[in-house]
Amino acid sequence: MSDSLKIINQGSITSPKGFSAGASFAGINKHSPYKLDTAILYSSAPCTTRAIYTTNKVKAAPVLLCQKRLPSPCIRALVVNSGIANACTGESGLLDAYKLTEIVSTKFDLKPDEVLSMSTGVIGKRIPVNTVEKTLLDIKLDDNGGHLFARAIMTTDTRPKEIAVKVESSAGSYTIAGAAKGAGMIAPDMATTLCFITTDASIEDDALKSSLANAGCNSFNMITVDGDTSTNDTLMVMANGMAGNRVIKKGSMDYRLFKEALMRACVFLAKCVASDGEGATRLITVSVSGAFNLKDARMAAKTIAGSNLVKSAIHGADPNWGRIISAAGRSRARMDENITSLKIGGIPLWKNGNILEFDLNRVRSAMMQSEVTIELDLNIGNSMATAWGCDLSEEYVTINSEYTT
Amino acid sequence: MSDSLKIINQGSITSPKGFSAGASFAGINKHSPYKLDTAILYSSAPCTTRAIYTTNKVKAAPVLLCQKRLPSPCIRALVVNSGIANACTGESGLLDAYKLTEIVSTKFDLKPDEVLSMSTGVIGKRIPVNTVEKTLLDIKLDDNGGHLFARAIMTTDTRPKEIAVKVESSAGSYTIAGAAKGAGMIAPDMATTLCFITTDASIEDDALKSSLANAGCNSFNMITVDGDTSTNDTLMVMANGMAGNRVIKKGSMDYRLFKEALMRACVFLAKCVASDGEGATRLITVSVSGAFNLKDARMAAKTIAGSNLVKSAIHGADPNWGRIISAAGRSRARMDENITSLKIGGIPLWKNGNILEFDLNRVRSAMMQSEVTIELDLNIGNSMATAWGCDLSEEYVTINSEYTT
Repeated sequence: MSDSLKIINQGSITSPKGFSAGASFAGINKHSPYKLDTAILYSSAPCTTRAIYTTNKVKAAPVLLCQKRLPSPCIRALVVNSGIANACTGESGLLDAYKLTEIVSTKFDLKPDEVLSMSTGVIGKRIPVNTVEKTLLDIKLDDNGGHLFARAIMTTDTRPKEIAVKVESSAGSYTIAGAAKGAGMIAPDMATTLCFITTDASIEDDALKSSLANAGCNSFNMITVDGDTSTNDTLMVMANGMAGNRVIKKGSMDYRLFKEALMRACVFLAKCVASDGEGATRLITVSVSGAFNLKDARMAAKTIAGSNLVKSAIHGADPNWGRIISAAGRSRARMDENITSLKIGGIPLWKNGNILEFDLNRVRSAMMQSEVTIELDLNIGNSMATAWGCDLSEEYVTINSEYTT
Repeated sequence: MSDSLKIINQGSITSPKGFSAGASFAGINKHSPYKLDTAILYSSAPCTTRAIYTTNKVKAAPVLLCQKRLPSPCIRALVVNSGIANACTGESGLLDAYKLTEIVSTKFDLKPDEVLSMSTGVIGKRIPVNTVEKTLLDIKLDDNGGHLFARAIMTTDTRPKEIAVKVESSAGSYTIAGAAKGAGMIAPDMATTLCFITTDASIEDDALKSSLANAGCNSFNMITVDGDTSTNDTLMVMANGMAGNRVIKKGSMDYRLFKEALMRACVFLAKCVASDGEGATRLITVSVSGAFNLKDARMAAKTIAGSNLVKSAIHGADPNWGRIISAAGRSRARMDENITSLKIGGIPLWKNGNILEFDLNRVRSAMMQSEVTIELDLNIGNSMATAWGCDLSEEYVTINSEYTT
């Protein structure tokens, strides 16, 4: 990151001023009843809050609630549960989501519409609201509670995903932080997975809106684990203005810096989600250059990163590079194979449509690294894009064939 | 099938009059050098021939050759190899494809442009033309050689896929037959996999063209194994007119019968491909009804059949039905979850957006059958479509992580 952006060691979403959080367990997932599954994020000042959501036509109840209450200049708290998605639960599920915000608003003496709720987990089950209510009433907030929050939102994730970035600028310093969960039902189509961003920056709603759109587009929209866009995908940002910086307005230098910092934080979290995909052993980074336009570059990169055949080949460190070309070919991106070139792990395998001689063991070794890079040059334009994914392992199938039972 | 269509026991693509075939091995796949990998299909009369091809922008050399020579009223022979796809092989690969047709045209004293070639297998490798030439010269044709042909085109398929149908009509009787290969890189986007159809029917080119488009659309375009559209996908039909029936003209009753028979043969073969997908243990049949229009019905059915999460859940007989609803929701088909209903194996699980009580063991048992049916009623229109797929098993990953090495 540039001089003005600095990652905070051991940072979390409670690193920005005024944010606190807490978490506990309500036993929502019967297989791991003592896993943290219920969390509250709280801000001591009202937050300008924006979110972008799943494009799935079936939207979970908490997504509908957030769509109703946002955008808002006065959000104070967020309640999240993992284990049950509260999707496909009809009118009753929607009432459950509202009830959770009422419980939290009463606890902190807020108005209900100053509170949001979010859920993740199995679709088609009701949240046990009475049990969760007891848990919510017990939760204690802590200025360092972000780490607990990041753990409580996990489902099949193997590790928490969090970041905090300190931004120094002529307008004053502020912090941007985030926590995300991922693992399955991850596909590149508008705000995949759950990701909550907090910041103490003072920023106008309009500037927050466009920074968020840009960040989502270049981070969570460019990852894929299994091609399945979830019913609950949400990327939310809450800005409480407590850093006291000069108000960030759209179009200013301050704005450009904020936008950059937010995007980097989101890319970091999105890559964490991709590399911790269900059953994943490797992160796959696909960079497409020379595309006709940005849309083509994105389509080609995402299609390659999402191909089961490419993902399986990388799992086995099998340099079956034809699958990468074939995936690009079906992506609808404009391409002419006679001028296209490909590298894996920096090693050229195919140049202008010609098969190159390569050292098989060197390529296999590059494919066994924890991050495998694929570089495709379409050579017909100037646009480029990067997408992230993970390998497809037998473990993915095992996890997903035994999820609810 | 109706009274006028009858499946021929032990039929093959050499069941129609005038067709013969033969196959041998050239050792193209180094791991199984004695597997049949080279085949010739021959017709003693010129065939009106049509094909539809992959929509992948990267097209294999033999696809380019077929696109150049078809449509044609005078095709006499086809040479097919498995093991190497002859894709991403540039100008040299194209010359190889032409060379194979020259060898076969010389062998049978035909003109080169009366012969077609097709390949399937690993992308990015050259065909060993000299070795294949020796094999081609050795191949003996046989009126019953269709079964050998069906085996020779297999790659990771576990069984041959063939059918022959006898059609009786007032215009005279004729036979339609086909052989297909599938297993991997199977996705629903125009003529997936290789499928060769022969018929001795006398039919006008225009009628053949539209029957083929209709058959492709309702069969191979409605299956998915892994979402990867191949560089070689081809669905070809060769009609030699030797049955002596009244010439089938577009719009006639004869035409409607031919169209129906061709579609049924293709649906049969497409279902064979889906159920023999790499690592598959079950055929998944997804029927969507009540869709706004046909396009929506197709999109929803194909998206559900192609979802890794749905496929994994079915592999584990896990009634995680929310994944089916979520897949429909991301398919872009119009839907309102409050009026949508779902059955698995005929058992209602969700009705008009309400979660139903169901017997878990009964649903699990339905999900353990060799064919699992999913019925989704979107309840907002009158269109319906059926798609076929297979479960996702650990074996799929194993097969595809060790394919080239």
